[in-house]
Amino acid sequence: MDLESASQVKQGLLAGGWSRVKALAKNFKTKVFDFFSNVKKLGQDDPRRVVHSLKVGLALTLVSLFYYYQPLYDSFGVSAMWAVMTVVVVFEFSVGATLGKGVNRGIATLLAGVLAVGAHKLAILSGRIGEPIVLGFFVFIQAAVSTFARFYPKMKARYDYGLLIFILTFSLISVSGYRDDDLLELAHKRLSTVLIGGSTCVVISILLFPVWAGQDLHNLTASNIEKLAYFLEGFGDEYFKMAEQEGEPKEDKSFLQGYKSVLNSKSNEDALANFARWEPGHGRFQFRHPWKQYQKVGALTRHCAYRIESLSGYLNADIQGKPEIRTRIQETCTKMSLESGKALKELGLAIKTMTKPFGADTHIENSKSAAKNLNSLLKSGLWDDEMDLLEIVPVATVASLLIDVVNCTEEIAESVRELASMANFQGIKTSSVSPEKPKPDQSNSHEAMNCSSVIITIGDGESSSHDQEPQNSSPTMNNTSSSRPSPRTAEV
Amino acid sequence: MDLESASQVKQGLLAGGWSRVKALAKNFKTKVFDFFSNVKKLGQDDPRRVVHSLKVGLALTLVSLFYYYQPLYDSFGVSAMWAVMTVVVVFEFSVGATLGKGVNRGIATLLAGVLAVGAHKLAILSGRIGEPIVLGFFVFIQAAVSTFARFYPKMKARYDYGLLIFILTFSLISVSGYRDDDLLELAHKRLSTVLIGGSTCVVISILLFPVWAGQDLHNLTASNIEKLAYFLEGFGDEYFKMAEQEGEPKEDKSFLQGYKSVLNSKSNEDALANFARWEPGHGRFQFRHPWKQYQKVGALTRHCAYRIESLSGYLNADIQGKPEIRTRIQETCTKMSLESGKALKELGLAIKTMTKPFGADTHIENSKSAAKNLNSLLKSGLWDDEMDLLEIVPVATVASLLIDVVNCTEEIAESVRELASMANFQGIKTSSVSPEKPKPDQSNSHEAMNCSSVIITIGDGESSSHDQEPQNSSPTMNNTSSSRPSPRTAEV
Repeated sequence: MDLESASQVKQGLLAGGWSRVKALAKNFKTKVFDFFSNVKKLGQDDPRRVVHSLKVGLALTLVSLFYYYQPLYDSFGVSAMWAVMTVVVVFEFSVGATLGKGVNRGIATLLAGVLAVGAHKLAILSGRIGEPIVLGFFVFIQAAVSTFARFYPKMKARYDYGLLIFILTFSLISVSGYRDDDLLELAHKRLSTVLIGGSTCVVISILLFPVWAGQDLHNLTASNIEKLAYFLEGFGDEYFKMAEQEGEPKEDKSFLQGYKSVLNSKSNEDALANFARWEPGHGRFQFRHPWKQYQKVGALTRHCAYRIESLSGYLNADIQGKPEIRTRIQETCTKMSLESGKALKELGLAIKTMTKPFGADTHIENSKSAAKNLNSLLKSGLWDDEMDLLEIVPVATVASLLIDVVNCTEEIAESVRELASMANFQGIKTSSVSPEKPKPDQSNSHEAMNCSSVIITIGDGESSSHDQEPQNSSPTMNNTSSSRPSPRTAEV
Repeated sequence: MDLESASQVKQGLLAGGWSRVKALAKNFKTKVFDFFSNVKKLGQDDPRRVVHSLKVGLALTLVSLFYYYQPLYDSFGVSAMWAVMTVVVVFEFSVGATLGKGVNRGIATLLAGVLAVGAHKLAILSGRIGEPIVLGFFVFIQAAVSTFARFYPKMKARYDYGLLIFILTFSLISVSGYRDDDLLELAHKRLSTVLIGGSTCVVISILLFPVWAGQDLHNLTASNIEKLAYFLEGFGDEYFKMAEQEGEPKEDKSFLQGYKSVLNSKSNEDALANFARWEPGHGRFQFRHPWKQYQKVGALTRHCAYRIESLSGYLNADIQGKPEIRTRIQETCTKMSLESGKALKELGLAIKTMTKPFGADTHIENSKSAAKNLNSLLKSGLWDDEMDLLEIVPVATVASLLIDVVNCTEEIAESVRELASMANFQGIKTSSVSPEKPKPDQSNSHEAMNCSSVIITIGDGESSSHDQEPQNSSPTMNNTSSSRPSPRTAEV
């Protein structure tokens, strides 16, 4: 190889290397950009996340004053680190979770400290050789028993963290006692620093932009019901329109997908309800607000969502049933769906505004009378000639599932009514005074109620209202769905 | 009041008090008894809980040797407490959760230690007055950034605990550095004790009766599919028999309820899959076993469970459709349900035994041909005279939902097949060699497949087989459902 070609090869390599470096740099740039836009979205979805992060930073900085400020350091010394640790592990997203962990940690530290000092006194009695054996025995027994207790469902739900801290403190103090003679002071310092750290968290989490798990649960319950409402309000038009307008521009169909997040909402709701029980009265919620009832409402909402999941399969099914058959039940089915949807919307609104759900009653009655109409329509023998049963089946199924949905709606309404009376919701009629409900929508539904046998162009009249509303309220929906960091807090 | 009556009153009070004390004692006795029987049940449901508790006790006792044994104490001193703490918080029910927490804790401690030492060096440069300000600034910034990072879904899923420990260690070490000049030694001691504690947990959790999250996820997936299978195998008989045998003794219907636990299985599956990814190869599972595919199978299983939830509403519905109508489609519907059930059972079995799911194919074909039969039956016009459509609707809905179930079953089969090829399941035919499948059952289904147009007494012939099987396999089902403590581990 002569020199010239060698230098050419070298140049070629350099050029290739350079272009690779450029590609890498570009790739890196895109990744960094993606990363930052993700981070931005994370903060925008729920600005409370940013606030929470700053609050944690503040609490930690405050507690580190124990190290910097001489008089404080003189009284606590290295024990101050327990305050720092407590802040890190206790500060959670919601007030309820923070309070729950703080109270658990405080009480468990106190109990375990007392018991550990007792265990230490007992162990001393058995002499210098017996002491580690007795101590080891105590540590083993309490760790095994407490760990097993953590499997007990009731304990697990509320005191899991307390049991963990109990094991921790008992082991640390009883074992330290073997080396440190001033055990009482050790226990006392640990307890007081834990209390200082815990109360710092609780105070900051309550005073600075508090995030209430109860409020989140309340909003989640309402918005889950509303998600079903959006689907049901849209379903009738969506299912029956196909034949009518084929060439229409693609609309936003996201309101038909919203219910899917309801299907798996149980763990989130349970966590929030658990946290909410620790919270003091806040805003419109008393201390003993019936949080359990929210879980009941949530269970019924999911129950309804399962039916809707079955129903949604018929929106895009291959066999749709003959158009003629579908048009015959179009009116009643659309009405059942629409009125259930409106009833659910009223229920969601009633929860949100904490008013008695009077507005839902007429819609439920309407949906039930539509279901009855459907029954008589089916009985009336409009059908029996020249019809292929095969083509009736999908339509019949949709009708039948809608009847199920109407029943589910009634159950949800009943549970919301219970909630309203347990939580003393206000008694005003939401449907007529609520500023969020557009007037035309309301009047339209009354029209539909009064002349149920006349064909009303519900399809067109309503489609505009339900196409807009999900968009209008999407910020709040987003907001509530992004208030879902709480399962995270359950994982710590 | 004279003395006599006063003593009478006193006696009466005493007697009343005594009987109250007796009642209280009895009440207390019952409560204690209930408590202990609950505890016993907790242990019997999943004996691994007892073993786990003893393992935690053992690990903690081992680690406390750092205090008792002079040479060990000489080298670590009070830092030994970090080992104790690590054991308490890292030791989880499953190997995967323990490993995940241990690795997170180890790496986070290392990283945070290095950064904190760096921050300390920087802070020193700014003089005695500037130092606490710079340190406080660093603590604030890292706490806020790390806390925000914990909201990032990908971080949250795998490194949440690591981020927590990062905040903890960084704060502790950088702040301690203000008082303690030998910072490197502090960081080094903390790291080594954390590693000792963590490895103690990992070693004990792997060597002594290991609980593998992967194995649990595997079993859970299989048993969830089987729960649907039991429902479907029983559904046909249950739905169509009513008219036939009314006065029969009440049988055990629990197999019709089993599917309900599938509806809310998502959070449990996600947690297990997350833990499983940390686990090394064990038993029949490789290190990079396709755990994600289990989540996919699980999602489709839940999808099917939603349909079954809708279906189950028709078992106890008020309107059942006329018996004559029901008997017309009885054979095909029973067959669809039964064959889907058998297919699902084969799929569950294939997962359990880790063999390719060949056995399911014929059943799926059978169920599909039954669905086709149903279509032609509906088309054949067996119906159109003198029938009330109202009475056809519920029956048509059941038929339609069963068709959905058949489709779902096929999707599940497809995903299990993918799983089988991803995880290299063995290629033997499970259906013919499996010792768990009774022969008559098998031959029966072949009979059914070959002569689909002949009326076979599937109703009677099969009912015995599916009534027994849930009982046969109920211990394993219990076992798997009680392997559900893992969500607990997610909450720590």
